[in-house]
Amino acid sequence: MAQLTFDSTKPFDFIGVGRLCIDLNANEIHRPMEETLTFTKYVGGSPANISIGMARLGMKTGFIGRVADDQMGRFIEQYLDKNGIDTSSVITDTNHSVTGLAFTEIKSPSDCSILMYRDNVADLYLEPQDIKEEYIKNSKALLISGTALSKSPSREAVFTTLHYARKHGTVVFFDIDYRPYSWTSEDETAIYYKLAAEKSDVIIGTREEFNLMERIDKRDEPNDWSTAKDWFKHEAKIVVIKHGDKGSISYTKNGQSFDSPVFPANVIKTFGAGDSYAAGFIYGLMKGWKLPEAMEFGSAAAAIVISSHSCSDAMPTADQIKEFIHDCNNGSQSIQKEGVQ
Amino acid sequence: MAQLTFDSTKPFDFIGVGRLCIDLNANEIHRPMEETLTFTKYVGGSPANISIGMARLGMKTGFIGRVADDQMGRFIEQYLDKNGIDTSSVITDTNHSVTGLAFTEIKSPSDCSILMYRDNVADLYLEPQDIKEEYIKNSKALLISGTALSKSPSREAVFTTLHYARKHGTVVFFDIDYRPYSWTSEDETAIYYKLAAEKSDVIIGTREEFNLMERIDKRDEPNDWSTAKDWFKHEAKIVVIKHGDKGSISYTKNGQSFDSPVFPANVIKTFGAGDSYAAGFIYGLMKGWKLPEAMEFGSAAAAIVISSHSCSDAMPTADQIKEFIHDCNNGSQSIQKEGVQ
Amino acid sequence: MAQLTFDSTKPFDFIGVGRLCIDLNANEIHRPMEETLTFTKYVGGSPANISIGMARLGMKTGFIGRVADDQMGRFIEQYLDKNGIDTSSVITDTNHSVTGLAFTEIKSPSDCSILMYRDNVADLYLEPQDIKEEYIKNSKALLISGTALSKSPSREAVFTTLHYARKHGTVVFFDIDYRPYSWTSEDETAIYYKLAAEKSDVIIGTREEFNLMERIDKRDEPNDWSTAKDWFKHEAKIVVIKHGDKGSISYTKNGQSFDSPVFPANVIKTFGAGDSYAAGFIYGLMKGWKLPEAMEFGSAAAAIVISSHSCSDAMPTADQIKEFIHDCNNGSQSIQKEGVQ
Amino acid sequence: MAQLTFDSTKPFDFIGVGRLCIDLNANEIHRPMEETLTFTKYVGGSPANISIGMARLGMKTGFIGRVADDQMGRFIEQYLDKNGIDTSSVITDTNHSVTGLAFTEIKSPSDCSILMYRDNVADLYLEPQDIKEEYIKNSKALLISGTALSKSPSREAVFTTLHYARKHGTVVFFDIDYRPYSWTSEDETAIYYKLAAEKSDVIIGTREEFNLMERIDKRDEPNDWSTAKDWFKHEAKIVVIKHGDKGSISYTKNGQSFDSPVFPANVIKTFGAGDSYAAGFIYGLMKGWKLPEAMEFGSAAAAIVISSHSCSDAMPTADQIKEFIHDCNNGSQSIQKEGVQ
Repeated sequence: MAQLTFDSTKPFDFIGVGRLCIDLNANEIHRPMEETLTFTKYVGGSPANISIGMARLGMKTGFIGRVADDQMGRFIEQYLDKNGIDTSSVITDTNHSVTGLAFTEIKSPSDCSILMYRDNVADLYLEPQDIKEEYIKNSKALLISGTALSKSPSREAVFTTLHYARKHGTVVFFDIDYRPYSWTSEDETAIYYKLAAEKSDVIIGTREEFNLMERIDKRDEPNDWSTAKDWFKHEAKIVVIKHGDKGSISYTKNGQSFDSPVFPANVIKTFGAGDSYAAGFIYGLMKGWKLPEAMEFGSAAAAIVISSHSCSDAMPTADQIKEFIHDCNNGSQSIQKEGVQ
Repeated sequence: MAQLTFDSTKPFDFIGVGRLCIDLNANEIHRPMEETLTFTKYVGGSPANISIGMARLGMKTGFIGRVADDQMGRFIEQYLDKNGIDTSSVITDTNHSVTGLAFTEIKSPSDCSILMYRDNVADLYLEPQDIKEEYIKNSKALLISGTALSKSPSREAVFTTLHYARKHGTVVFFDIDYRPYSWTSEDETAIYYKLAAEKSDVIIGTREEFNLMERIDKRDEPNDWSTAKDWFKHEAKIVVIKHGDKGSISYTKNGQSFDSPVFPANVIKTFGAGDSYAAGFIYGLMKGWKLPEAMEFGSAAAAIVISSHSCSDAMPTADQIKEFIHDCNNGSQSIQKEGVQ
Repeated sequence: MAQLTFDSTKPFDFIGVGRLCIDLNANEIHRPMEETLTFTKYVGGSPANISIGMARLGMKTGFIGRVADDQMGRFIEQYLDKNGIDTSSVITDTNHSVTGLAFTEIKSPSDCSILMYRDNVADLYLEPQDIKEEYIKNSKALLISGTALSKSPSREAVFTTLHYARKHGTVVFFDIDYRPYSWTSEDETAIYYKLAAEKSDVIIGTREEFNLMERIDKRDEPNDWSTAKDWFKHEAKIVVIKHGDKGSISYTKNGQSFDSPVFPANVIKTFGAGDSYAAGFIYGLMKGWKLPEAMEFGSAAAAIVISSHSCSDAMPTADQIKEFIHDCNNGSQSIQKEGVQ
Repeated sequence: MAQLTFDSTKPFDFIGVGRLCIDLNANEIHRPMEETLTFTKYVGGSPANISIGMARLGMKTGFIGRVADDQMGRFIEQYLDKNGIDTSSVITDTNHSVTGLAFTEIKSPSDCSILMYRDNVADLYLEPQDIKEEYIKNSKALLISGTALSKSPSREAVFTTLHYARKHGTVVFFDIDYRPYSWTSEDETAIYYKLAAEKSDVIIGTREEFNLMERIDKRDEPNDWSTAKDWFKHEAKIVVIKHGDKGSISYTKNGQSFDSPVFPANVIKTFGAGDSYAAGFIYGLMKGWKLPEAMEFGSAAAAIVISSHSCSDAMPTADQIKEFIHDCNNGSQSIQKEGVQ
């Protein structure tokens, strides 16, 4: 599994890039939000959650992003600091922006929705000038999230990041994380996702997200291997395609594929499943584990997070995940499937 | 005090026009918002608060405004319904707008601030076509709030309202309610405030707000009587100028002025003082009371609201206000000053 | 005809406010513009044309407006200077704006059209701060054009002008001059036209333009006297309603009405008819002539301009108009109708 | 010189993509534009000029672009038709856009400038959906111009074009053609130029334009060979760097470089030099000529165009260019320098 090479001489393990926002989670759940009276505040945003996850797992982590010049922005920066994340590249925006908000509505474990505030948000004011070549150069890996591509100047900041990452051998994880409300059209989305994916080492997305990128080619029927091979022609070594309830499959440039194991969970809400999976999975890959082991670690992390009220605040440590896997293996059974093309 | 004439044949007493939004009040108070973890949700927005106040006082009340097509918008409409406010002119906006938010921070009773979300808000999408001539014609009085003038098409909807109100003898209360973040410049603000104030019967604002309207004339020193007389040349009969801690003064077209009484209060926060004052004051005027009585009623309502956690939800009934005044008069003393020019 | 009072102690006779642009008139005419190969450049824009007309008639004239910081802007300012118009309030805009353009297409004398360039034009960047109270105070009369109301900040600059004009007794001529391409909606247009017309002494427009202002009242059938009386309730003393081929009618506050005479013309194009009419008509009113005389002077000026290739450059002197009227009266006959309500 | 491979089975030789606009050339030249009274209308825009040049040279040429729904737009489409260019992918825009304009000012042969109208122009409304995969597939070569990258959705339409071109082996010529007024920032420009250049076979630009693309890497001193090699790592086979008066140099992936010859010209204006050069140069490459021959052909075409009043209308035929070269070689001498790294 030597497809990804992490340069051990680099001081940082991991840098998250992009969205830093606030989750306001309904305290009174299992009802429509109209009937919710109080909300609890957490740090949110997919790359923020993953970075917090990586820090909890003991990785030396930094973040590149912009926060609003207000109480919400200061809360986010303080929370990252408390979690040991380097915030030297977290910039206080001065464009009179606000902090993105996500009010969560949990009608039932399987019926969850989010009410988003994404107008004039600080994270999309990230600029190319905010990206320091030295900072990128000094990290073994980084993660970009697709929402950061949805508007200028954040979009150009991401391409600047990708340029430096490729120049200096920093491994790029691309979490597609498609959120339609920030984009002008699906055509626009497809174009910039493709340009970013071409420069990424690991691409993670749902089957629908990969379909979106393929709309320009009007491919008749979605096919995971065809999709994966498109990206292996560029820089990708691993492509992870999520099939909802049916689980995720990882495809590798050398022709292997692996199914994700599934762990039992006492599901409170499904939010945060993807972010905790990503943290566990990337951690495993960076530890040099085989792909199935990394996937198992990600799945276990996800099972832990969806059983609790928050996303960021519930990110587990490595010991917690190991203990969880151990308990499951001695009790209920996880399922592991493996395939070769 | 026969300066205002309310047409008793009209079925509605009062219509609020403009902003409907959500207050998210910090539950853990007396600290910076960074340290607040949970928030409670209330209906907010100055004209919403005043209208709720009027309904609590037993007036037949309606509202003209737009709410977002989401859980917050539905919560607002349901809350108005529950308070007996006619919502036939409350329109669900379909411009992908959001509901305005106000997170309150209460560091101490005298150190309160608000973190506003006002980008792409539903209330500023109110359109001239939303204003039904018959609805305006059928109300004795209406209230417009200055924030509704800050952007098109809401601005034009307000001028449409004013046109119908003057045409049909509906008494216009204009609450200046200046919020700088929605405006492009102070010049722009001054121009539209002046155009609206020229068509209003009662104008209520702080000394600073009246100064803002006078910036175009570069008047040397603010003077309440000069200010009031400017507006008496147009449609105004009463001008209320608020001087912060020093209290409010009402000026009348026939040359009288009256100071507001001050009631003792166990202040939790200062938010909502102006809105509850306005509700009590307008109620008194509509009952045909003398100006000092109406002002006393407004002051008492304000004292009640600033002693509780919310604004809208704490609006008192007439009985509560009367009881409060009675209790105060038999205990601590309110002060009433009267002046004649 | 003592309805308008011009203060003879004021040094300036007339100030134009608003649009300064460039006409590019087809040299090869009587064909579609696709087949026109060369164009000749003139100063254009309704208030510019009228001001040039007033200056040619010997009136001491000034202009308030913004021009682009480019060759077209400099050409305009130089042309005004050459015509003796005071340009101390013509400001060079620094918003990277351009000069408005109007390419004229003359398929036949009765089939003319204009291709407009009105995006990001300098004239609509006129700001309230550009309006000097002293300059307005020092003029006997001024003219505002409806297009200047179509966008901020020019819209607010016009209302600032109107405020100073009313304050200092400067007579306001309002040329409605409706051009749909600059406006967001007809509702928006109607609102601001009404607010400006309420503060004007003389209102000039087509029947369709007055209908537009009345849309908010959904009046069943347009009626000139009803229209005129609406405005006489505010500041208007004269209302001129143009009925296309059927000519214009002037209505006065004291209940009189007068038809415009029609002069024979060797029509090249219809552009500029309204502007030259306005110049002649306003000149007559300012000379203290009776209304029919002023209207005849306007009609004669129009007949001269539509018989030549340009608008601004063809504006006649008083002697030219008088000679033209004299020639017509001794030859072909003008028609004068008069009515009293 | 077998670096570029043109697939002879494809029916089209060449497709231009992007800007179609109007040049308005001063008829009275050698003076400031303020003193110019008449202008002559021509089709303009760099890719339009090059495509017209290619058609004149006998190549089967098409164009992909949007024109305004007005007389200027129809004039452009008719002119392309007359020149034998396929306009099946020239779309009439319905966004109320206008046609871009370029007023030329020719103070002297060496002191020329352009006054641009680029707000709300039709060509920048080109959409990804306008790009037909089959049309790109059917052409041996295509040219994209950097201005088409300056705004959405035209920017995304260009990347769609590049995707299809690479997929189907259509040779991509990228004319950087940097025009600052359409861009938000130099950072933004650099990012998208780089992404497009990475997918191009031949990149043509000035030394300053290549510097702009390198700003992200803060390279100390511009160096042509370093620049060229950056692009040879991607898809480029030829990089042409223009050094103003000192002429252009072509660099090839196999390590050669060639200076452009210079032809004598009776210069009227410098506009159109680059476009005519590009047409002649691309024509030569597509004919399979050696690089120096293609460059000579381009230089001769440029010498012809700068000696005449227009750009598009002056594009020469192959016979005219050959005759010009022949005449020059028998009279004044062109200079050819060749270098090898």
